Amino acid sequence: MTIRVGVIGAGIMGADHIRNLSRNIGSAKVSYVADVDRQRAESAAAVAGANPTTDPGELIASGDVDAVLIASHDSTHAELILESFEAGKPVLCEKPLAPSVEEGRRVVKADEEIIAATGTSLLSLGFMRRSDPGYVELKDALASGRVGDAVLVHCVSRNSASAPGATSESAVRNSAVHELDIIPWLLESPITEVSWHAGKPSPGAPAGLADPQLMLFRTANGVLTTLELFLNAEYGYSTRCEIVGEHGALSLVEPVSVAVDVERARSTGYARDWRPRFADAYRIELQAWISSLVPGAEGGPGVDRGSTLATARDGLQASIVADSVIDSMHNGGAWTAVGRIA
Amino acid sequence: MTIRVGVIGAGIMGADHIRNLSRNIGSAKVSYVADVDRQRAESAAAVAGANPTTDPGELIASGDVDAVLIASHDSTHAELILESFEAGKPVLCEKPLAPSVEEGRRVVKADEEIIAATGTSLLSLGFMRRSDPGYVELKDALASGRVGDAVLVHCVSRNSASAPGATSESAVRNSAVHELDIIPWLLESPITEVSWHAGKPSPGAPAGLADPQLMLFRTANGVLTTLELFLNAEYGYSTRCEIVGEHGALSLVEPVSVAVDVERARSTGYARDWRPRFADAYRIELQAWISSLVPGAEGGPGVDRGSTLATARDGLQASIVADSVIDSMHNGGAWTAVGRIA
Amino acid sequence: MTIRVGVIGAGIMGADHIRNLSRNIGSAKVSYVADVDRQRAESAAAVAGANPTTDPGELIASGDVDAVLIASHDSTHAELILESFEAGKPVLCEKPLAPSVEEGRRVVKADEEIIAATGTSLLSLGFMRRSDPGYVELKDALASGRVGDAVLVHCVSRNSASAPGATSESAVRNSAVHELDIIPWLLESPITEVSWHAGKPSPGAPAGLADPQLMLFRTANGVLTTLELFLNAEYGYSTRCEIVGEHGALSLVEPVSVAVDVERARSTGYARDWRPRFADAYRIELQAWISSLVPGAEGGPGVDRGSTLATARDGLQASIVADSVIDSMHNGGAWTAVGRIA
Amino acid sequence: MTIRVGVIGAGIMGADHIRNLSRNIGSAKVSYVADVDRQRAESAAAVAGANPTTDPGELIASGDVDAVLIASHDSTHAELILESFEAGKPVLCEKPLAPSVEEGRRVVKADEEIIAATGTSLLSLGFMRRSDPGYVELKDALASGRVGDAVLVHCVSRNSASAPGATSESAVRNSAVHELDIIPWLLESPITEVSWHAGKPSPGAPAGLADPQLMLFRTANGVLTTLELFLNAEYGYSTRCEIVGEHGALSLVEPVSVAVDVERARSTGYARDWRPRFADAYRIELQAWISSLVPGAEGGPGVDRGSTLATARDGLQASIVADSVIDSMHNGGAWTAVGRIA
Repeated sequence: MTIRVGVIGAGIMGADHIRNLSRNIGSAKVSYVADVDRQRAESAAAVAGANPTTDPGELIASGDVDAVLIASHDSTHAELILESFEAGKPVLCEKPLAPSVEEGRRVVKADEEIIAATGTSLLSLGFMRRSDPGYVELKDALASGRVGDAVLVHCVSRNSASAPGATSESAVRNSAVHELDIIPWLLESPITEVSWHAGKPSPGAPAGLADPQLMLFRTANGVLTTLELFLNAEYGYSTRCEIVGEHGALSLVEPVSVAVDVERARSTGYARDWRPRFADAYRIELQAWISSLVPGAEGGPGVDRGSTLATARDGLQASIVADSVIDSMHNGGAWTAVGRIA
Repeated sequence: MTIRVGVIGAGIMGADHIRNLSRNIGSAKVSYVADVDRQRAESAAAVAGANPTTDPGELIASGDVDAVLIASHDSTHAELILESFEAGKPVLCEKPLAPSVEEGRRVVKADEEIIAATGTSLLSLGFMRRSDPGYVELKDALASGRVGDAVLVHCVSRNSASAPGATSESAVRNSAVHELDIIPWLLESPITEVSWHAGKPSPGAPAGLADPQLMLFRTANGVLTTLELFLNAEYGYSTRCEIVGEHGALSLVEPVSVAVDVERARSTGYARDWRPRFADAYRIELQAWISSLVPGAEGGPGVDRGSTLATARDGLQASIVADSVIDSMHNGGAWTAVGRIA
Repeated sequence: MTIRVGVIGAGIMGADHIRNLSRNIGSAKVSYVADVDRQRAESAAAVAGANPTTDPGELIASGDVDAVLIASHDSTHAELILESFEAGKPVLCEKPLAPSVEEGRRVVKADEEIIAATGTSLLSLGFMRRSDPGYVELKDALASGRVGDAVLVHCVSRNSASAPGATSESAVRNSAVHELDIIPWLLESPITEVSWHAGKPSPGAPAGLADPQLMLFRTANGVLTTLELFLNAEYGYSTRCEIVGEHGALSLVEPVSVAVDVERARSTGYARDWRPRFADAYRIELQAWISSLVPGAEGGPGVDRGSTLATARDGLQASIVADSVIDSMHNGGAWTAVGRIA
Repeated sequence: MTIRVGVIGAGIMGADHIRNLSRNIGSAKVSYVADVDRQRAESAAAVAGANPTTDPGELIASGDVDAVLIASHDSTHAELILESFEAGKPVLCEKPLAPSVEEGRRVVKADEEIIAATGTSLLSLGFMRRSDPGYVELKDALASGRVGDAVLVHCVSRNSASAPGATSESAVRNSAVHELDIIPWLLESPITEVSWHAGKPSPGAPAGLADPQLMLFRTANGVLTTLELFLNAEYGYSTRCEIVGEHGALSLVEPVSVAVDVERARSTGYARDWRPRFADAYRIELQAWISSLVPGAEGGPGVDRGSTLATARDGLQASIVADSVIDSMHNGGAWTAVGRIA
């Protein structure tokens, strides 16, 4: 059986998802593409042999669409999710869940009503690092007990350059949010307290963006996490995570395939941005979502969606933590307690 | 459009291909599975919702089969390829092309007649390293000119343990054959001369298997390649390739995701065998093959099969070189000229 | 000319210094060894063909002693330095300068009077990391401008196990003190503000020792430094330092000589403690001190002691910062301003 | 006691030795410097406060010289060694022992007569790799049995550029000779058979120099060694050695202290030539030689010279193997048996 996916948003992320769904994902095809820009919708749809539209409602309602992938502007996420819920269609929504915690709560409420009624959620959230082979191996290695319980975590998240319009706050909500999701996932414990500190401002950063930033998180199980977020690190895209345990430490290794020896140095490359770095993660995430939608007999290709992909609650929780980080930022770096979902 | 694949051979490799085709490959499904062992055929078919059979001929002839994947015993390859040719169906055949050079020549002849008649080949050969992201990056890096022309290549191919029944000769034909294909592909020059040397016999090797072995290859462009093949290296599966150029050197980096610090050491893992090491390569190879079969309008998902996957001639050429290596082995290591295809 | 050194303290550090001075350092010999334990003094002296004593005053006063190396208990440092000053003899004193800031100030005052009178200091302080080839290369690389100005620094300092009697406070004064000295040296800017945070307590740590600890330092030039100090990291001794600059980053690489491939892993070793890790640094530091004492014509072997070895002021400044860190520790982690020397 | 060393030859190597002996080596001083170029002798002697001369015989005979270090032109080695023997003075001679095997045999004969008469040799040969911490750790790791017995060794020796006048033959005698000494030392087994093969000529190599070259060595214990020697590798100086054993493998790791992240790459540096790469080895070698000359009571600083430094026989044996490699080179790469010393 082939799952016919309607993709809303044909920007960089949407176009990548369309390419993946058309070519690299089993049991899927793209049947509809919606974008506010008609030309972009049409050219993206042409690649996949899909119907173009500028109206996401038409896509969601279409009988040719079994499932909806939302990759449009952040501000549209909550509404499109709720509309898909009403159509009874499963959704994979790019992070964030919603631009505001209030909207996020509405989505979670609707999601939980559906779960209560049907026993299953319609929503998966695109925190792709949960599907990255490195993070998965890191989590497995921690679970193996080889280094004992975690006591500290060090994260580093560096980009070559910040996106236009980035601010200290948007950097937390859009970039640090990946760690706000992955740390509780790795440690199986929610973040309960946060503290924010400015680095020395890099001359490459625009006004309004403290860059680099340092954040400290404490999870309910007592583990302290440090996160350096540096959007204008210039040299490349780099994501590090080290879990220090009672008996040893576990570290992500940046994926490299080839080493080059020239001019008195051995060198290996960094990704230019998150897309090559997490290309496998996006493909695996999409495949996990599609496979979970294929009605499968026992032993069939269906997998338990809940086990790998993030839920609405995960997305809301990450947004709540982001708000607390921003509170600390506006409050001299003081340790700030994180609110709970309900 | 979905390509319905009939898979012949449901052993380790066949089962992996079936799992991939069912779940991780776009535009494909497994419709038929043949194996000499009926139970194995049935259980493999059940995973994919396919028809089981013990008769490969039935599979090849079936109207439910658009394309044939051959993963059965080496001795059956040539005949099954020719049978698929007669049915006019595209084939992806696991290496080797054929157990003997003579049979290989028959396949190449048939293939070239089809190309002459139709303009396109029906056969792709499963030298999966050509689809490995590391080897692809290595070839691209060489082509970039950054290190100048190649002058030397060093290859190392180590396994934990040899397969039952392995001999010095079968090790060349089944294991070293990967380098016999990949070296000409990397250097874009055929191997013209070979020389074989025994290492000190490892106590882990069975009688009849010189292990480790050292082979030297010279390609038409003058480059000298060394290959250490060690099937009972015990410690793990490892594939290395370093291209030394006029101005620098390029090396494959073993893929690792996580580093572990315990007990006074930092360590990273080796694959236990070729399957995890080349899992991406197999998936990408399969996807490239399937994508090449989907009739695509310009800009559609179809790719040029010839550009990445090995051809019948590649397979035959590798077999001819293997024979020359074995000649050198039986002749005190003397440099031995390699015969040409025709 | 041979500098005859009197070594006070024949414990682990003293014995190492005696071995080095006897065998691996040019223009030096050990002429006197003092230790409160007569037997220890005698056996250490025998190795070097030196005079043993239990009275450091006798050693300092001896006509056979050109220079004094103090490696006795921390509580004795200040007094022994001052006694050496009175004898007009140059001193290399192991860190710390003095157990309390008050005593440290007395030493600095005496040192500055001597400088005022003679134009040269008699005191060098043993912060050996300043002589470690890695730290020296790191400092040079920063100075080269290749990564621009520093914006952030990340330090990690891990030991296998804490020394008996270690407390949260002693860990700062004895272990973190190395970073309290090396960070200003690397950045050429004093630490002006500090903040302390507890990690999740490791079960391996004794009561009274928060382990691991996280410290934040801000230097006068605005750079933010993080330091993880983990005395019971179990797996080995590890010292990391990464300087993140405007255009790139610089990291110390743990020195390793051999990689081992066994049992499905590649591994490299960690030092068991600071002595093998910093053996080169101690040797180079000692050599730099001795060379600075040899009266040399221009172009001769003498070097400018001030350029590499730490001064009394450096030692006092590190102690003052340590006190501020401990203040923050006792004050809920609040950012705490660091006092200045005078 | 201070050993007064007379250094013959004040070129690059000689000047380095003089600097080391003056500053970084315990119990030593340079008392005499001889060079054919009077100005060079004088300026090198001035650094050390030594007597300059153009007459090595004057140096050897001088009552101010306890031991002789020979770093003059290769063609002078044998004669100067024999002259030192006659003066009864211990000698450290840079490799090679002698320009020809015949002269080497004369030295060995004289050396063995002295040993027979006095019980101790006067000659140490400067194969400095035996004192390199990496090679020492490699040998120790092999001896530990962790990887079982060796079955294969892979060596790579790359330089940025060949010295003026280098030929295929001189490359073997002057560069490959380091491996001709170190392989038997590592494996504790002499090389008994050799085979030589040309790589594709690098355009950077001068006429008369086959570059790169590949050599195969078989030791008496059956182990096969490969050596790539590439003098015009351009990118840097690199020395690799991997010992493949029955259960695992051991590899030298190039020493690096700092990693640099800039411009989309992480890089670590290569040495520009052998001097920084083996600076520690030269220092340790010199120290071992000097320490062995200091008359020491039990437990004193004297060490057994024979255990680390190469002997006259080692030097002769390496020369004999080099001749066999050149025979193979002139004979189409055939395996060639190595002659024995006597």
